[in-house]
Amino acid sequence: MNGPVIVRTIERPAPDVVSSLAAAGVATVHEAAGRTGLLDPVIRPIQEGVSIGGPAVTVLCPPGDNMMLHAAVEVVQPGDVLVVATTSASTDGMFGDLLATSLARHGCAGLVIDAGVRDVADLREMGFPVWSAAIHAQGTVKATPGSVNVPIVCRGVRIEPGDVVVADDDGVVVVALLSAEKTRAAAVERLAKEEKTRERLRSGELGLDFYGLRQKLDELGVRWVDTAGDV
Amino acid sequence: MNGPVIVRTIERPAPDVVSSLAAAGVATVHEAAGRTGLLDPVIRPIQEGVSIGGPAVTVLCPPGDNMMLHAAVEVVQPGDVLVVATTSASTDGMFGDLLATSLARHGCAGLVIDAGVRDVADLREMGFPVWSAAIHAQGTVKATPGSVNVPIVCRGVRIEPGDVVVADDDGVVVVALLSAEKTRAAAVERLAKEEKTRERLRSGELGLDFYGLRQKLDELGVRWVDTAGDV
Amino acid sequence: MNGPVIVRTIERPAPDVVSSLAAAGVATVHEAAGRTGLLDPVIRPIQEGVSIGGPAVTVLCPPGDNMMLHAAVEVVQPGDVLVVATTSASTDGMFGDLLATSLARHGCAGLVIDAGVRDVADLREMGFPVWSAAIHAQGTVKATPGSVNVPIVCRGVRIEPGDVVVADDDGVVVVALLSAEKTRAAAVERLAKEEKTRERLRSGELGLDFYGLRQKLDELGVRWVDTAGDV
Amino acid sequence: MNGPVIVRTIERPAPDVVSSLAAAGVATVHEAAGRTGLLDPVIRPIQEGVSIGGPAVTVLCPPGDNMMLHAAVEVVQPGDVLVVATTSASTDGMFGDLLATSLARHGCAGLVIDAGVRDVADLREMGFPVWSAAIHAQGTVKATPGSVNVPIVCRGVRIEPGDVVVADDDGVVVVALLSAEKTRAAAVERLAKEEKTRERLRSGELGLDFYGLRQKLDELGVRWVDTAGDV
Amino acid sequence: MNGPVIVRTIERPAPDVVSSLAAAGVATVHEAAGRTGLLDPVIRPIQEGVSIGGPAVTVLCPPGDNMMLHAAVEVVQPGDVLVVATTSASTDGMFGDLLATSLARHGCAGLVIDAGVRDVADLREMGFPVWSAAIHAQGTVKATPGSVNVPIVCRGVRIEPGDVVVADDDGVVVVALLSAEKTRAAAVERLAKEEKTRERLRSGELGLDFYGLRQKLDELGVRWVDTAGDV
Amino acid sequence: MNGPVIVRTIERPAPDVVSSLAAAGVATVHEAAGRTGLLDPVIRPIQEGVSIGGPAVTVLCPPGDNMMLHAAVEVVQPGDVLVVATTSASTDGMFGDLLATSLARHGCAGLVIDAGVRDVADLREMGFPVWSAAIHAQGTVKATPGSVNVPIVCRGVRIEPGDVVVADDDGVVVVALLSAEKTRAAAVERLAKEEKTRERLRSGELGLDFYGLRQKLDELGVRWVDTAGDV
Repeated sequence: MNGPVIVRTIERPAPDVVSSLAAAGVATVHEAAGRTGLLDPVIRPIQEGVSIGGPAVTVLCPPGDNMMLHAAVEVVQPGDVLVVATTSASTDGMFGDLLATSLARHGCAGLVIDAGVRDVADLREMGFPVWSAAIHAQGTVKATPGSVNVPIVCRGVRIEPGDVVVADDDGVVVVALLSAEKTRAAAVERLAKEEKTRERLRSGELGLDFYGLRQKLDELGVRWVDTAGDV
Repeated sequence: MNGPVIVRTIERPAPDVVSSLAAAGVATVHEAAGRTGLLDPVIRPIQEGVSIGGPAVTVLCPPGDNMMLHAAVEVVQPGDVLVVATTSASTDGMFGDLLATSLARHGCAGLVIDAGVRDVADLREMGFPVWSAAIHAQGTVKATPGSVNVPIVCRGVRIEPGDVVVADDDGVVVVALLSAEKTRAAAVERLAKEEKTRERLRSGELGLDFYGLRQKLDELGVRWVDTAGDV
Repeated sequence: MNGPVIVRTIERPAPDVVSSLAAAGVATVHEAAGRTGLLDPVIRPIQEGVSIGGPAVTVLCPPGDNMMLHAAVEVVQPGDVLVVATTSASTDGMFGDLLATSLARHGCAGLVIDAGVRDVADLREMGFPVWSAAIHAQGTVKATPGSVNVPIVCRGVRIEPGDVVVADDDGVVVVALLSAEKTRAAAVERLAKEEKTRERLRSGELGLDFYGLRQKLDELGVRWVDTAGDV
Repeated sequence: MNGPVIVRTIERPAPDVVSSLAAAGVATVHEAAGRTGLLDPVIRPIQEGVSIGGPAVTVLCPPGDNMMLHAAVEVVQPGDVLVVATTSASTDGMFGDLLATSLARHGCAGLVIDAGVRDVADLREMGFPVWSAAIHAQGTVKATPGSVNVPIVCRGVRIEPGDVVVADDDGVVVVALLSAEKTRAAAVERLAKEEKTRERLRSGELGLDFYGLRQKLDELGVRWVDTAGDV
Repeated sequence: MNGPVIVRTIERPAPDVVSSLAAAGVATVHEAAGRTGLLDPVIRPIQEGVSIGGPAVTVLCPPGDNMMLHAAVEVVQPGDVLVVATTSASTDGMFGDLLATSLARHGCAGLVIDAGVRDVADLREMGFPVWSAAIHAQGTVKATPGSVNVPIVCRGVRIEPGDVVVADDDGVVVVALLSAEKTRAAAVERLAKEEKTRERLRSGELGLDFYGLRQKLDELGVRWVDTAGDV
Repeated sequence: MNGPVIVRTIERPAPDVVSSLAAAGVATVHEAAGRTGLLDPVIRPIQEGVSIGGPAVTVLCPPGDNMMLHAAVEVVQPGDVLVVATTSASTDGMFGDLLATSLARHGCAGLVIDAGVRDVADLREMGFPVWSAAIHAQGTVKATPGSVNVPIVCRGVRIEPGDVVVADDDGVVVVALLSAEKTRAAAVERLAKEEKTRERLRSGELGLDFYGLRQKLDELGVRWVDTAGDV
């Protein structure tokens, strides 16, 4: 650790990779990424029916202090997703409609924050997408420094600047920049496969059959009986 | 315990009893059942304004393993509600749009699960009703067996296959199959009584008066004073 | 402590002060009040997009007992907000559509309760605004006395009868009756100032600049570097 | 439901079965019972190094009301374990040194309670063993009835009067009266087997080898590499 | 609110009142105070078997900032108990062995803090009594002001400087300065009464009898039956 | 991600660096490391008064599956600390006295696990040090693979194999292998400085004075008043 730092320039993934991952959605990307990168379900959307994707601009703040969010606005590029962690747990409302106005003006795609947000009625009306750990009007100070665009851990996941963040009604998943292209390919493949599966299930086929689970249940000693009396 | 088992056939309540209970709603059924059978409020709907009722098909799964949900699809009858518990606490996303497609195809009325679900945007769009302990995209495996249609404990309530499950915006309540008819009668009576009470309250009468609480407060030593200065 | 008591008459703030505070919203009022009076974020609205304000009628109940809510209806005046705490933690559904019908009939503006509520589909349909710690159908009794219009502590905040309660999508804040006028003035001033800030942020100016944070970051030893390699 | 009831006489397991299960301890009994009957880990001992076992005398109380505990004292037999659940969640201190004095006088072996206890310094000094969900001095009332010796659900487990309760530093497990003898046999067998395993592990053998896990890891596709560089 | 302030001199209760209340213990004082003043059970002792009492010196800190604790040391008098709340929830380790050394040197009787503490091995060895919401080594800053000796709300209880704090293995209770003498008298009376009750219970009498609960159970409709078959 | 893997050989820090860090303790190391590396306070010791330090052998397990712990035993070297995370939240008792016997036999210094442990009475008696998220007897399976000696995130901290783990009554902190030497130096320096501070505090000096806080409080607008009346 060399003290607090703001990194101006980060490497970003190719836009088409980002948009493919965003389109695939959190659950599919999580699967395509080998079931890694999923934030704890405590992080929830403040709106319904919105999904986003973009490169992570990371921010690390002291609890109850949102000064570094202002610094982050300067380095955000259009399409980026701001991802905020605090050095210790806090639900203070570090983010509201003013910061959202500024971020939106600079093209930011949305916010993921392991802390609280406020002015949520305004945020919903503005259409600025947010995933947060809490809704809390509690005010914060601008007194103690943190960092921007350094690696952070956010609710169980290590995130580096430029990693791809995908967020929707299911939560938030992060794909490492280096794996983004490979994960995109796996996600596309998975979507195609799922569509076929969906068709078979719609037609009435049973997962039990086409996943080959009948035999597996048998091998594992699960008995089928007709009624409770046969147990 | 005789090991994992899948019971194919269960006894179910009369359809008109089920539909009456569903129409009465969770709060009324809970009262009509002598204030029993209510699941812990951690179980929440993923949608608003939907209410369902149906016989329980129960599933007991290991944490992080959804294999038995596939087995349950085979034994579900139209109108049934799938009720899922895990052998230890887990918020993993055991259920998503593929299983919902399959269950919907076989007429399942909805899902109550003490674990996580994913693809919630799809589930809402499909109109497949779900009550769950979490929304979490975390994937699960199909490696360890469990049981279908055995008695389970789900968030504080013992549930037997065929018990009536009622779920709405207030949560989930379960009525034992044997008490269903009696509870239905009590619920119908209660609804009528509540309607009369509602009319009186709408007209401005006070609960204090027609519940006879003035005298009770008096007996219990509660004093009425005009202002704080009189305390 | 002189035992349970119901205080009939309380001092109330001027209606225009209340309506100004309600219009300013929770986050602004919390700031205008010197960042005091905010309830813990566990208290959440059961509806979206609704904001209210009014003088507090306070109720202190034993856990699992809603008798005092009925007593409170008698002393509620049009525009009041009922604020309910329990003597120990409980999520029981102490409040439902019948009590809401009665309170609405007597002009009550809404409910803030550190416990559970039920019949939420009805409450939403009636348009009776509620902020609660839980949604839970669990029934309660009318057996043990409490008090109405005494000072209470509700989720971290001391509330006296007649204090101004403001509640919206961000949560609930309470302003002491004595500070209401001063807080209103500060809130109005703050709204004007925020509007100017919003304009500047919309035009692309950075908070970093007009909050004077660049120099502060510098003084605090935060370094700006071009790329991660320079860290 | 036929209303509140106190059942005076219950069937109890053979004393030697109880003492064998108590000696085996919670973890072993849980395994011997097919991994069933374990209470949620929220239930913790208030003392260290104590283990007990005995038939369950069950009590169901309203939250914040300990009247039924007094009724339970009358039906407790020497060696019994009192197991207490509430009809909804509560941490109130329902139990303290006076009730413990009374229960100890009548030979009760200990208490398991899904609520709070108080006077814990006294309880520890008396040596009256307690497992509870909380330590809380909050007082309770004696106003609303409940039941004694009816089936209850306590933190995830259905318990019938006379079931065997075993509690130690690991928590609490319950064995159905009907399965007690069989579970005892399985526990004894398991203890012997574990002792042999322990000897082999003490001698330096690896679980990897004698559980046959090397081959399993192989089949499941786990790769062994020498250094991180080989990943 | 007139901004942050440190009040040097506070009114304190008579020493013999404090020592009587401390000797009575948390549960008894809570009862003697009409069941008021008890902190939430989240506040737990870091040591076993220690009980203290003393006048409260109150401290209000921003989350993650312990500057005001240093200011508090200057105003602490021998026998005082430091009671610390934060303006929003935090478990940061605001207090450790250095502050404890300083407080002990100035005669402080102990600490109650709704946040985290660290160096707990040292604190236990020094014998400096602490009740806290968490044990957490997380460091804090000294950047943002708070207040000393102002009224605070600490885990559900309003505390004014000079109020009597009593803490033991059961938790923490606070008695208002004005009620201290009256509460002491009630506590002494209660202890005498409890001792008599204890004697009767030790001799085998049942609470059911001498609390008059048999008749009450009868009136409330509780039935006594011999066996489950009679239910 | 290239699938599950077990890495046999890892780089380890110099033994004297490890022992110095262990001797400094969690709070000091956390400070010396620039306030990084501290695990969430949910991870608690199962024993009191024990402190350890050692290189991390990391294990990533599926929830409810402890197969990889057995694999880890093969790669553990004397002095290592096993650090275990699960792919999603679980409190299952993945570790007990048999695994402890095996690890102790191979010289393992202790266990840090973000899950449950069981047989804690045995673990305490054996003197095998454990820090865990829960004590829970719940059994686990050996069915699904994970990895050993890969980077993991454990309760908010990224841990690489070979990083230095220090654990004591305050919790657990992790220092990156590359920073270990530098952090050790900072810790040693800090201990010396703290000892001087301790002496000054013992002699009665105030932190307010020698931290220079009087002036700071002044600059921040904190007022000193004599009595509450002056506020």
